[in-house]
Amino acid sequence: MTTKPRLHICTTCTASSADAATDPRHGKVLFDKMVETCADQDLPFDIKPAQCLTNCKSGCSVALSGSGRWGYVYGNLDPETIITDLCDLAARYANTTDGIVAWRERPESLRRNVIARIPALD
Amino acid sequence: MTTKPRLHICTTCTASSADAATDPRHGKVLFDKMVETCADQDLPFDIKPAQCLTNCKSGCSVALSGSGRWGYVYGNLDPETIITDLCDLAARYANTTDGIVAWRERPESLRRNVIARIPALD
Repeated sequence: MTTKPRLHICTTCTASSADAATDPRHGKVLFDKMVETCADQDLPFDIKPAQCLTNCKSGCSVALSGSGRWGYVYGNLDPETIITDLCDLAARYANTTDGIVAWRERPESLRRNVIARIPALD
Repeated sequence: MTTKPRLHICTTCTASSADAATDPRHGKVLFDKMVETCADQDLPFDIKPAQCLTNCKSGCSVALSGSGRWGYVYGNLDPETIITDLCDLAARYANTTDGIVAWRERPESLRRNVIARIPALD
């Protein structure tokens, strides 16, 4: 069982604001930017790539999950603007015990981006 | 840690095909029908109510989750017609080790209803 919560980033996403898929995909750009930005930081979560979170119409997509925590999928993320706020959200998520980050505690850019969530396994 | 996989049913959902919320909510109707239908069955999964899966625009919503399995959120479910197929899908999910039920193995009524999924924690 993993100890750190995880931020999965879909690397096959096309951004919902884009006209067409790019090469590399927007999701891959988002993943690479997150890894690069966080390379020297001691993060309370792990960053992992994922092959499709089945949220293709509302990319870019990421998922937050962790043992004993609610799982969340966020969508409609712009890889050019979301890095700092996404890192902040994931850290807040990791610092909860149940995975629930209150609406007001989320970065403003991510308050309306929850696609769905899954209850914690107890 | 739970042993059986879980089918969480959002009891606060309004069906996306409906004009307005009802009392009881469509999600509560779905939950009650599932519990009633399955009362005498030895199911390989547990049925639990959930308070909002944040999929409000595409209700009714359910989530499948289990230890070591990918988690799935399904949406746009009609409580009047989905009971048998939902029970079948959840049983198929429970009988996998990783939570992945191939597209062709899902009941046809549920093949286009995945809202999002979250990778398994290993």
